[in-house]
Amino acid sequence: MSYIDNCCINALRVVGAEMITKAKSGHPGIVLGAAPIVHTLFTKHICISSNDEKWFNRDRFVLSAGHGSTLLYMMLHLSGYGITMDDLKNLRQKGAMTPGHPEYGHTPGVEITTGPLGQGIASAVGMAIVENYLSAKFNKPDFNVIDHYTYVLCGDGDLQEGVAQEAMSLAGHLGLNKLIILYDSNDIQLDGEVQQANTENTKMKVEAMGFEYIRVEDGNDVDSLDQAISNAKLSNKPTLIEIKTIIGYGAPNSGESSIHGKPMPVEDVKELRKFLAYNEPEFTFSDDVRKYYEDNVKTRGYNACSEWNHILSTYANKYPEDYQEFQKFIFDDFEIEDLNGIPTWEVGSSESTRKEMGAILDWLSTKLPNIIGGSADLTASTMVKGADGIYGQSNPLGRNIKFGVREHAMAAITNGITLHGGMRGFCSGFFVFSDYLKPAVRLAAIMGLPSLFFFSHDTVCVGEDGPTHQPVEQLTMFRCMPNTNLIRPADSKEMTAAMLLAFSHDNTYPTIVTSSRQALPNLAETDQDKVKFGAYIAFEAKKNADYAFISCGSELNLCIDAAKKLKAQGIDVNVVSMPSMFLFEKQSNEYKNSILPKGQKRMAVEMGTSMPWYKYASYVKGINEYGKSMPIKYIFDEYGFTVDKICNEFLENVR
Amino acid sequence: MSYIDNCCINALRVVGAEMITKAKSGHPGIVLGAAPIVHTLFTKHICISSNDEKWFNRDRFVLSAGHGSTLLYMMLHLSGYGITMDDLKNLRQKGAMTPGHPEYGHTPGVEITTGPLGQGIASAVGMAIVENYLSAKFNKPDFNVIDHYTYVLCGDGDLQEGVAQEAMSLAGHLGLNKLIILYDSNDIQLDGEVQQANTENTKMKVEAMGFEYIRVEDGNDVDSLDQAISNAKLSNKPTLIEIKTIIGYGAPNSGESSIHGKPMPVEDVKELRKFLAYNEPEFTFSDDVRKYYEDNVKTRGYNACSEWNHILSTYANKYPEDYQEFQKFIFDDFEIEDLNGIPTWEVGSSESTRKEMGAILDWLSTKLPNIIGGSADLTASTMVKGADGIYGQSNPLGRNIKFGVREHAMAAITNGITLHGGMRGFCSGFFVFSDYLKPAVRLAAIMGLPSLFFFSHDTVCVGEDGPTHQPVEQLTMFRCMPNTNLIRPADSKEMTAAMLLAFSHDNTYPTIVTSSRQALPNLAETDQDKVKFGAYIAFEAKKNADYAFISCGSELNLCIDAAKKLKAQGIDVNVVSMPSMFLFEKQSNEYKNSILPKGQKRMAVEMGTSMPWYKYASYVKGINEYGKSMPIKYIFDEYGFTVDKICNEFLENVR
Repeated sequence: MSYIDNCCINALRVVGAEMITKAKSGHPGIVLGAAPIVHTLFTKHICISSNDEKWFNRDRFVLSAGHGSTLLYMMLHLSGYGITMDDLKNLRQKGAMTPGHPEYGHTPGVEITTGPLGQGIASAVGMAIVENYLSAKFNKPDFNVIDHYTYVLCGDGDLQEGVAQEAMSLAGHLGLNKLIILYDSNDIQLDGEVQQANTENTKMKVEAMGFEYIRVEDGNDVDSLDQAISNAKLSNKPTLIEIKTIIGYGAPNSGESSIHGKPMPVEDVKELRKFLAYNEPEFTFSDDVRKYYEDNVKTRGYNACSEWNHILSTYANKYPEDYQEFQKFIFDDFEIEDLNGIPTWEVGSSESTRKEMGAILDWLSTKLPNIIGGSADLTASTMVKGADGIYGQSNPLGRNIKFGVREHAMAAITNGITLHGGMRGFCSGFFVFSDYLKPAVRLAAIMGLPSLFFFSHDTVCVGEDGPTHQPVEQLTMFRCMPNTNLIRPADSKEMTAAMLLAFSHDNTYPTIVTSSRQALPNLAETDQDKVKFGAYIAFEAKKNADYAFISCGSELNLCIDAAKKLKAQGIDVNVVSMPSMFLFEKQSNEYKNSILPKGQKRMAVEMGTSMPWYKYASYVKGINEYGKSMPIKYIFDEYGFTVDKICNEFLENVR
Repeated sequence: MSYIDNCCINALRVVGAEMITKAKSGHPGIVLGAAPIVHTLFTKHICISSNDEKWFNRDRFVLSAGHGSTLLYMMLHLSGYGITMDDLKNLRQKGAMTPGHPEYGHTPGVEITTGPLGQGIASAVGMAIVENYLSAKFNKPDFNVIDHYTYVLCGDGDLQEGVAQEAMSLAGHLGLNKLIILYDSNDIQLDGEVQQANTENTKMKVEAMGFEYIRVEDGNDVDSLDQAISNAKLSNKPTLIEIKTIIGYGAPNSGESSIHGKPMPVEDVKELRKFLAYNEPEFTFSDDVRKYYEDNVKTRGYNACSEWNHILSTYANKYPEDYQEFQKFIFDDFEIEDLNGIPTWEVGSSESTRKEMGAILDWLSTKLPNIIGGSADLTASTMVKGADGIYGQSNPLGRNIKFGVREHAMAAITNGITLHGGMRGFCSGFFVFSDYLKPAVRLAAIMGLPSLFFFSHDTVCVGEDGPTHQPVEQLTMFRCMPNTNLIRPADSKEMTAAMLLAFSHDNTYPTIVTSSRQALPNLAETDQDKVKFGAYIAFEAKKNADYAFISCGSELNLCIDAAKKLKAQGIDVNVVSMPSMFLFEKQSNEYKNSILPKGQKRMAVEMGTSMPWYKYASYVKGINEYGKSMPIKYIFDEYGFTVDKICNEFLENVR
């Protein structure tokens, strides 16, 4: 290793330790152990440009081991991302640019919010998919306008997560050779030695999944690290580079789990300095170190970006149509000018909203060539698929991703697709199995990503498949998530609105749309234009009636019929359709009061747990038990979701 | 294959197809493809006794591919479990003994509810752990009182699931050689060819994880199947037997995904009969077939069970103390006679409830030698661990399971431990990562299993680690789950009660207990004896006061202080501690009204999403956004959870 590499790595180790010790909180183990890895990656390989942070062809770096944020912040500091030394000193403090784990949209240069283990690896697969797709679509024999790598730094914990294993299995299958995972393999995890919990043969396992495996015996050996990354770039497979490191290298308790997540005492930082023979003042990167990063990250990246811009302008001249299209992909600049040709269903007809969803999505795919997605082996049931055939090595321009039965990774990959930019990701499954992918939906919500999740079979009306397949509490699960738009449409008009809202530009939240297994009537009372308000009065027995039903999805038609029946008996009950509580809560108080007037007594009706509705209704007809296996024809009666029973329950409990 | 084997398999295929066709719902693909597998397993290997369904040393059979329930029901029918031919004809109908997916506790002989893919494999690992532990504890050189296998039938989809991969990785690590996974490898999944989504090298992958791999080239070859299972039994590792089958074997659309989940038309069943040259009447097992199962499953199992009882009585004579202890394990017959020595904390002292939880659990482990569990690499933080050292090959009597960073499998394994019987499983992690294991908790709730989930760091008070580590919506997520007891204790007295409730006998639901990261005051107002009611009045400013706070966990002490402050201002506000909504909802209306009197105006206070509280309170002070990275000292002010702010918010919005 060169003298300057050594200087840089020592500086990263000491300043990183100082940051954490000052913060009185953080994870020094990975900082000390993996400093040479990020140093080598950033100074010798990664192509990013702090002058143009969002440069489209930049390499993507995913810190899957998000607790190593200190390393990332130092890289961003040294590489010109406007992270100051004060920011570094402010690690993990209130309002800091340098929060405990990397936060997308908060800190410039952070590509993805990480922390929950495994998610970063899985989302990186999504990023690599977009790179692969766009390169197949836009590159020419003489122009590689898309040609970048997705690098991941992960630890032992990351690789133990099922979500990572699912995603790597798919990455290997898809042959995503631009994906390079740097595995900080230090034999220690939070609770002690890795071998107490895991004794896999990593090489064999990842090779079995279609990865190239490269091993670096000494994680302090910059030359070996450099060579390993160079070799990985040449592979026609995704690569995992296992790098043997020592957790907390240089600390008195190096090699022990105690260094993982506890700040070093000041004395130990002194010991570290002594061990490394490091003499710079506290919180100091020497000019040499700064210059090395200036030259080898910032300037190199600036040059690469400039060169790319030059190539792109030449490309624009030679392939003007492709260039136009490419720009539209980059800026997500596809407008749905009008709805001509979008599938519609006549009022009075009957259809499942899953079929409507599938048909509308197919239509949207013709208008939005930058959407890509698929299902976790359930397209035949959810009706959700991408266009242009199955995406894969033999058809890199397919937009239908066969995720396999890998729901969790599917969602994280969808986040990665959306994060990369240039394309928008969607995915689908049975609503009951949304449980499997909830952790990734949460990250989309935290990041404010417009990832799209389409779930079918949204109630116990699944029927014969029984309780394991009958969602009951999932509507509540997503409605209680901050910054998450769950839309549950009642018929084709509402479904059309939901899908258009889902794909609209500038959403700063994920959207979940649920659909029914069973056919539903296409109602005269629904209003496509009002879905965006989250709730509206679908049936008005009387202005500001004393009573109202609130409902959505497959129960709305029952409530309308119930209200009509009660009207015939001289009882005025309005019906509010509330497909999205999230959108409703965003409306003005005036609007909210116009839909849910004060003093009105309301009964909510939904085939799911009652919890979300008590905010709006004094009485809730829900399902607060697990479902039962039986044909759908018995379901409605079993749970009392018939017009007569709803009327009776209203008369007994609300009126 | 012998003539009778052929007769049996043909019968299973035809009757199975007839069942599904009659039901107009179900999955014929696996029934036709895997019939020889279950036939071979049941008639030549599995030791179960329908005379004594819960025979403790029976082999456990886990149908991880739960959609193959038809196969299981036919096995149970032929093996004397009281499943009648009418039950078979009633497949998937309302109230049937034969629901769409196998349901534990509903159908005799069903060991576990399955359907959500991957869960069965993972829970089987838990069963195998108990077998392994108990055999190490109770077997003698001359007596194997515990000596049985855990068999799993799974398909392609199961193995693609992260939860299965996590569990298998742990099973390999633990060397659970009595675990035998029969992999119905038919190259087809719901949406088409497996190779469209997955091209792993299964052999290499499972060997990398420490499994024995055996391949059966022809899934119709009973002799090879028989031999493969025999060989698996001899291995010192867990085994995966990959069995090449043809999905829907014998159906006109065999080998195609269309046969997976759609009933065969009557015409196709006729074709199947022709193909198999099968001439028995509809819904008929010939006497030969019945006799074969009678002899080779029922009688063989009966004899094995009788022999075991004989061995056990000899064992009882020779090792009376071990026998006594063994019986106590089998019947979960450990009583906590008194609470002498249980850790206590003085009123006025301050401690985090996670430390209290850990200390109480350590004490419980000394009283309850049949509890086993651990953490997903977070014992150092959650304080939850099992006793007697790390469970593993070198210490099979350790009761601390190091699950690794495998949260999802951890929960499913905990279910398997509890399902096996003889031991009770618990597990732990950060509350925010409860998301990862929600699907398994759901199965515990559906099955009515008393699995135990202990989560620490239950609010945004996690602090510096930021939004990815700060739970916000998880309390709602579990409270809205049917049949799930979430307890959120406020201090050591409530924590003690919570842990005793969690481990009490006869719970027919899983229990989740959450704990705080930060120290909390041990309150004079809490009442250990009243936690079991779910809610109680902790501070009574005045009987039936016009106002009340409802709260729990780390916010209860704030509410009590706020009520005292308001009392000093002449405003009477009671404080209800509500650690468990689930238990409260089980109380009589009289009790509920005594705690939450009609007409009282209530404000709920909790550092989590507001949704659960609207049922009980007109105003909710919650946190309906994701957290932020900052030291805990700023958190309370940031979110307004201080005594002053609570008082002000009460005065402005409630009074």
